[in-house]
Amino acid sequence: MKVKKIEHIGIAVKSIEEALKYYEGVLGLECYNIEEVADQKVRTAFLRIGDIKIELLESTSDDGAIARHIEKRGEGVQHIAFAVEGIEEALADVSAKGLQLIDSKPRKGAENLNIAFLHPKSTLGVLTEFCEE
Amino acid sequence: MKVKKIEHIGIAVKSIEEALKYYEGVLGLECYNIEEVADQKVRTAFLRIGDIKIELLESTSDDGAIARHIEKRGEGVQHIAFAVEGIEEALADVSAKGLQLIDSKPRKGAENLNIAFLHPKSTLGVLTEFCEE
Repeated sequence: MKVKKIEHIGIAVKSIEEALKYYEGVLGLECYNIEEVADQKVRTAFLRIGDIKIELLESTSDDGAIARHIEKRGEGVQHIAFAVEGIEEALADVSAKGLQLIDSKPRKGAENLNIAFLHPKSTLGVLTEFCEE
Repeated sequence: MKVKKIEHIGIAVKSIEEALKYYEGVLGLECYNIEEVADQKVRTAFLRIGDIKIELLESTSDDGAIARHIEKRGEGVQHIAFAVEGIEEALADVSAKGLQLIDSKPRKGAENLNIAFLHPKSTLGVLTEFCEE
């Protein structure tokens, strides 16, 4: 198994509108899509930079993963997503190598990608997502 | 000012050797360079992925920034570095927009890049590096 590229970096923010003042107004990036992912209790904003994306994540609920992340660690990088080919095989491969999965099977994420998370205990503290178009 | 691309993602690890078992052995990436940056009290390992890099950061001292990061937050993403054109002008620009700088002038970082850090209080919790070749 070889990850192809970083698809996006997920960043937890309190408010997408406030965050865009920095990412668009200071860094000069452009948000091309905002969508809600109901089952993850988040609203997400995507900005392209080079051949990867920044995904800003705002919680839509006090008990969602992003709300908990901000409560515990403050705003900041929440996960890194790697593009893989054959996500089910990739999950089986890393599981066979002893890594702990959060999602044993892919599910639908933002931008209609098939996604699955690996547990940060198995990935040196980096919450890690595999995704495939 | 517009950042060109993400140059690298900096990840704090306790041990580069242990971390490479995951980044090379599981994710299939390849480390092409390990070097020590004495004034930052770190040893760094670089792996290319797509057109960006992952920089693994291991502390060489108990009182370095990486040691403090791991003590406070555990292993994980420590900073994001954006490639900019004209780093001095970029720093002046973000400073004029009210952002707090850690480095008011560029200094030499790993891979002989000119680098400067912005304070995470000004960048929504993401320790942010500007760098230029």
